[in-house]
Amino acid sequence: MSDQLQDPGTTAEHPGVAALFAVLAYGELAAFERLAREAEMSPDLRGRIAIGSMAAAQMRHFDDLAAELAARGLDVVEATAPFEPVISRYHARTTPRNWNEALVKAYIGNGLAADFYSEVARALPAGPGAVVSEVLSDTERSGFVVDRIREALATNPALRSPLTLWGRRLLSEAITQAQEVLATRDELAALLFEASADLPGVTQFFESLQTRHAERMATLGLG
Amino acid sequence: MSDQLQDPGTTAEHPGVAALFAVLAYGELAAFERLAREAEMSPDLRGRIAIGSMAAAQMRHFDDLAAELAARGLDVVEATAPFEPVISRYHARTTPRNWNEALVKAYIGNGLAADFYSEVARALPAGPGAVVSEVLSDTERSGFVVDRIREALATNPALRSPLTLWGRRLLSEAITQAQEVLATRDELAALLFEASADLPGVTQFFESLQTRHAERMATLGLG
Repeated sequence: MSDQLQDPGTTAEHPGVAALFAVLAYGELAAFERLAREAEMSPDLRGRIAIGSMAAAQMRHFDDLAAELAARGLDVVEATAPFEPVISRYHARTTPRNWNEALVKAYIGNGLAADFYSEVARALPAGPGAVVSEVLSDTERSGFVVDRIREALATNPALRSPLTLWGRRLLSEAITQAQEVLATRDELAALLFEASADLPGVTQFFESLQTRHAERMATLGLG
Repeated sequence: MSDQLQDPGTTAEHPGVAALFAVLAYGELAAFERLAREAEMSPDLRGRIAIGSMAAAQMRHFDDLAAELAARGLDVVEATAPFEPVISRYHARTTPRNWNEALVKAYIGNGLAADFYSEVARALPAGPGAVVSEVLSDTERSGFVVDRIREALATNPALRSPLTLWGRRLLSEAITQAQEVLATRDELAALLFEASADLPGVTQFFESLQTRHAERMATLGLG
């Protein structure tokens, strides 16, 4: 019920906070579902475990964010469902065709999410900011992916060019869909880019994501 | 490496303990993978969340058990891989064909695992017993399933008979594969049924599982 989003309870909280937790929650659920499916592409048990662990971590983030929505009197399904189309569009356009693409997507997607959380936490009031930082603190489990991609590139240097293109596509689709969310949810854009003097603005926000994406690609041996 | 199972480190630990943690760990990983896949059968977002949360809980159990294997100097992949065939056989023979079968399997499978953990914890020395009890404490998240199955039966009483047969098959396949494990891993049978005066024996062990299974079927409105 959208009117619940207008009434975040007894605290005079910015309405963008609930919308932010809702879009992050749906993003975590979708990431869990995709990573769990992609773990099955692993050629071996070690990969199933590593990507399965990353998947389960996303569901823990979802649980944390769902608890925040519940604490605001919101039904988690009603609050998150509006974000299903845009996040499904991202995943539909970035479905890995093989294990290496799945690994790169796991690493790049996890990293983009961490950067996004980190930027967002700075823009939030202390309470919601702490929630986002807490979720973020559990995001780092990607050493396995770095090792595997570097091994794959050492064994087969011809993978470098297609995986570099793949990494660029992941970033561009993520930015496209994030901009779509900001364009259609005024309260989110207001929360992130108007309420804070710390954040210089939407352009710089996405430029920062791009810079750190390039660093991650370099860590993988791509780009 | 099987010789590692003979040498569980500096403590003079029963060799069945490491084997027990390994079979439980692989069981949790497989349960995670199956539940994550079955969550996709849900007709709605609420079901995806409920079964996704159950899946993620299994992966947490896996992480706990993997940490115990690592603490014993064992590689988690090498330790758990021998149990892949028997656990895969259980899941291959109990693949749900629809959402109601998936829900019943999630509930019955979770319950059987909890019973098994509970019985096993009693047979173990204090240290490993506490590990098993700790994993077990996180197993209860099945209220959603009970509500949904009872609703489905109220709407369509013809579901009762096929879902009752399905529940019986889940128990019978679980017992078949558990007996297979005990028959081929002497150290496990010795740990569970010889080292303890508390447990009356393998027959009573499986009878106890059957009694509690019948109670769970009744909770669902089946049987």
